[in-house]
Amino acid sequence: MRRTGWGAIDVISNRLIFVGSGLITSNSKKDLAERLLELHEGIMSVLERYDPSEVAVEQTFVNKDAAATLKLGQARAIALLAPAQMGLEVAEYAPNAVKKTVVGVGHADKNQVQTMVKMLLPKATFDSEDAADALAIAICHAHQRGQKAYKIA
Amino acid sequence: MRRTGWGAIDVISNRLIFVGSGLITSNSKKDLAERLLELHEGIMSVLERYDPSEVAVEQTFVNKDAAATLKLGQARAIALLAPAQMGLEVAEYAPNAVKKTVVGVGHADKNQVQTMVKMLLPKATFDSEDAADALAIAICHAHQRGQKAYKIA
Repeated sequence: MRRTGWGAIDVISNRLIFVGSGLITSNSKKDLAERLLELHEGIMSVLERYDPSEVAVEQTFVNKDAAATLKLGQARAIALLAPAQMGLEVAEYAPNAVKKTVVGVGHADKNQVQTMVKMLLPKATFDSEDAADALAIAICHAHQRGQKAYKIA
Repeated sequence: MRRTGWGAIDVISNRLIFVGSGLITSNSKKDLAERLLELHEGIMSVLERYDPSEVAVEQTFVNKDAAATLKLGQARAIALLAPAQMGLEVAEYAPNAVKKTVVGVGHADKNQVQTMVKMLLPKATFDSEDAADALAIAICHAHQRGQKAYKIA
């Protein structure tokens, strides 16, 4: 809710090309409804700017802190709703699946993820961990759908 | 997510008048993004039909089942977002506050809530527990804002 990272890439045959990345923030002093609206407007604006053909979102990690789980679920609902409103299919990947695809191990740390994102997308710039994570999800999705396309072909 | 109740009332000075109530459902076989979209479209359609000047939503009850808390949070985010997108203020009430206002005790059961809703809104019809609960939230909001108006005056 407070920091929602996003990343956009192009996939041309097997090549991945960095397009953009960023962070959508919401004012924690505002009411929840207002903050969800800010998040929705932020995501819609990114979708309109980059006009993606596919979208992937990280699966929420259910942890023991029920209040944190609730907040994450609220933010995530908006991240899923916005692309669905534009008629886009939304893929979902668990954090460990993203790390496994991008770094090779499910328990990779944040530095390893960022190093691999820089390796796979040399032109990538990201000003936050969350933006780097979002690019990792995009890379994971590109890889998974590539596998699927290969299986279909 | 599976069953989202709604209720609409008019408040004319101190009189409460039943306007409508219902249930928005989503197809549990669909993807989460699709279901959130169904819920969003359902809520927007109710808001457009009744054009309310104020909206109240039940506060989510955080329980020990993290997966259930997450689902409730996702549905609730949509219930808060939709009225905010229409520029409406969204009030939030804890379930116990609703019961306390409508029945007089915070631990009232569902039958007591429904009996009081029928008493306070004699013309009310509701085909589900969730719709009755939504009408109770509307009554609670009418009462709370009445109190506030009185204090201001």
